[in-house]
Amino acid sequence: MSKISPLSGFPELLPAQRAVEREVIASLSRTFELHGFANIETRVVEPIERLAKGGEVDKEIYVLQRIAAEPDARAELGLHFDLTVPFARYVLEHAGHLQFPFRRYQVQPAWRGERPQEGRYRQFTQADVDVVGRDELPFHHDIEVMAVMVDALGRLPIPRVSFQFNNRKLIQGFYRGLGIDDVTDAIRVIDKLDKLPPDEVARLLVERVGTTPEQAQRCLELATIRVEDTSFVEQVRALGVADELLDQGLEELAAVVEGCRAVAGDRVGVEANLRIARGLDYYTGTVVEIFMDGYERLKSVGGGGRYDALASDGRTTYPGVGVSFGVSRTLLPLLADGVLAGSRPVPSVVLVALNTEEDRAASTQVAAALRDREIACEVAPAPAKFGKQIRFAERRGIPYVWFVQADSSTGAVRHQVKDIRSGEQLDADPQTWTPPAADLRPGTISSYPKENQ
Amino acid sequence: MSKISPLSGFPELLPAQRAVEREVIASLSRTFELHGFANIETRVVEPIERLAKGGEVDKEIYVLQRIAAEPDARAELGLHFDLTVPFARYVLEHAGHLQFPFRRYQVQPAWRGERPQEGRYRQFTQADVDVVGRDELPFHHDIEVMAVMVDALGRLPIPRVSFQFNNRKLIQGFYRGLGIDDVTDAIRVIDKLDKLPPDEVARLLVERVGTTPEQAQRCLELATIRVEDTSFVEQVRALGVADELLDQGLEELAAVVEGCRAVAGDRVGVEANLRIARGLDYYTGTVVEIFMDGYERLKSVGGGGRYDALASDGRTTYPGVGVSFGVSRTLLPLLADGVLAGSRPVPSVVLVALNTEEDRAASTQVAAALRDREIACEVAPAPAKFGKQIRFAERRGIPYVWFVQADSSTGAVRHQVKDIRSGEQLDADPQTWTPPAADLRPGTISSYPKENQ
Repeated sequence: MSKISPLSGFPELLPAQRAVEREVIASLSRTFELHGFANIETRVVEPIERLAKGGEVDKEIYVLQRIAAEPDARAELGLHFDLTVPFARYVLEHAGHLQFPFRRYQVQPAWRGERPQEGRYRQFTQADVDVVGRDELPFHHDIEVMAVMVDALGRLPIPRVSFQFNNRKLIQGFYRGLGIDDVTDAIRVIDKLDKLPPDEVARLLVERVGTTPEQAQRCLELATIRVEDTSFVEQVRALGVADELLDQGLEELAAVVEGCRAVAGDRVGVEANLRIARGLDYYTGTVVEIFMDGYERLKSVGGGGRYDALASDGRTTYPGVGVSFGVSRTLLPLLADGVLAGSRPVPSVVLVALNTEEDRAASTQVAAALRDREIACEVAPAPAKFGKQIRFAERRGIPYVWFVQADSSTGAVRHQVKDIRSGEQLDADPQTWTPPAADLRPGTISSYPKENQ
Repeated sequence: MSKISPLSGFPELLPAQRAVEREVIASLSRTFELHGFANIETRVVEPIERLAKGGEVDKEIYVLQRIAAEPDARAELGLHFDLTVPFARYVLEHAGHLQFPFRRYQVQPAWRGERPQEGRYRQFTQADVDVVGRDELPFHHDIEVMAVMVDALGRLPIPRVSFQFNNRKLIQGFYRGLGIDDVTDAIRVIDKLDKLPPDEVARLLVERVGTTPEQAQRCLELATIRVEDTSFVEQVRALGVADELLDQGLEELAAVVEGCRAVAGDRVGVEANLRIARGLDYYTGTVVEIFMDGYERLKSVGGGGRYDALASDGRTTYPGVGVSFGVSRTLLPLLADGVLAGSRPVPSVVLVALNTEEDRAASTQVAAALRDREIACEVAPAPAKFGKQIRFAERRGIPYVWFVQADSSTGAVRHQVKDIRSGEQLDADPQTWTPPAADLRPGTISSYPKENQ
């Protein structure tokens, strides 16, 4: 078999890095569960007609076919490209067995055949939380689901993230109040503020969307409002646009910002940023994009919002609100940059040394006693010189080496454990010895350690 | 959107069932880690030429292609159909960053486009443990890796499982010692003992493999040896065949059976069953198949063995030994039969009731206080009558409902918590109240409860 080269866009983690990813996923899951969200997993395939909706992502779908299929057989299944499409289908398929409002979280890979680059992969893991109702879903769930993700990301050992909120009712009401007909088009032009200077965007609004120069100016003014509290309400009012939908949007956005600020520690920023639009396809109220300090080049590391029809079977409509966090998009660059690293590539906290191959049973007994008390360990693979066995532990980051030695005169067995970092070697009893809690499991070494844990 | 029907072969779990699966995977993972096995995940795709090796499984491979690919573009990637092929590739690709012997476990889905039936799915989750060495891997790792899985399955709330061991050296040495040339063919015929009577198998050995009737008789005698200890050694010796490889096989098999018996409680059977062959493709020593009591119709729920060349890059060879457990194959039938069930479909142990929508902040505060002490909870979605809120909790299996009531005369806030199973309602402080440990998280209800936990 020839030399293996990596497959572009399909990154894999080494064991110590995977330990970090596992810790992050476990932390997210625990927070989601504290808020009453149940975990589900969906199958990874969906009928192609459910995936392909005419959007940009369509051409990136991976379709699937049995290798033994007839040459002209039509492919019917594709890999999901996000966790929203399969969740919507899951809700429809299993509605009779679910209780609504249904709170779920889902941490799974998704696949997109796009050009790989930093933060963009062909296989990537996402963590989604959503609340979905049957027929109706009160607005307070918008606050709830966003606050859950604020809480969850605040507990991760990653750089500060900022939640930038807006509300589609606010934008639509404002534009309508201004007298702009084609709200969709106007938003698409305003979205270019990232790349073009304001003058240029104003010119495009007039030329392409048909606004007056004054309307264009108001749109720009709205889009540049960005504050960390609810003062945006007054700033928008000061622009002198009156509309009922705008009022509702302002009220909702203020409630989301306040609700999220209440749970955000100093690891998470919460802002109203009235430029955020998040496409126009299915969001109908709250929208959010999440950015990570120092990693603005990744664009958003998460996002979501309210959709009045997550799913519908013709009779019943299921409105929802949710937010997605890009686990791979966030962690892979942080691991590559060394901002995050695993403390060791093995779970073992102890290597039980081996005197001779004949003594393996004695070492295995010590290992069994340690495991009975939840201490992960392994027995040395070969009865090498002790110096070599210690170096074996060292290379794997195993902090302790255990020695079992029979006194040649009395035959009594002496147990000793050596902390190979300090060199300290002490008598120990396999039935009672316990390592410090910090050594017990592989941990995450982060430039952004968690403060409260 | 029309009515959804399930996709055959792609089963999905409801939230309470998924909680069971998560608990099982967490338990397996924890045991693997106690024995020093590190978790990895591999990408789900491999180059087709790495997957398709001319075996039976080839035609079941799902190949993958971007939907936007040219019509005559050759598909290059397929979904993995087990966790061994991707692990072998991972070892080759990342060998420079791994420490050998490398102990890894992996819990991931795999895909096979086969005809769905009970225990056989097109997407299914497996849990694999393997130890892989560079150039060499001492035999004691055979005992180690099998004992890990014995330990792991013994901790699951499932029916008793039995590990049936054999050794390829034993079979090959015996046949060679008997003077049979075509060992592969003989084993293939002996494998039919499941379906055909012994006489018929003996006839086939003579006709197809060209053995003498006496050789055929010896083969049958070997294949019917099945014991729960090492007495098979004497039984084989009594058949009067002498061969060096046979001796080595007997010694290895005895050591594996003894090593596994030492860790097996009464939840796990350990047997030498000299009929087990497990194909002939890459196993070279220890082989094992795992069966579950009362579920013999599923055939094996796991298996594995020793392979002297898990992977090779031409210069270096990586021998390995491992065993795989079919998580989906085992759990889905047990869940369907009601042998296993989740205790509730939500993580919440408390529903915080709501007096009026205006009081939501007070209920949210109680929820936050409980979460600070790791108590999962949710706030009622609407300020319905308390009876209705209690029924809401009941339907989700949430055992406690929390009431926050302000005394209308004094304004003092009174907190009470009701156990809706007993009806008992007591004063409680959100800063200190704690539910019994058994209620804290959703659990698994099993006809085969774990004894020691």
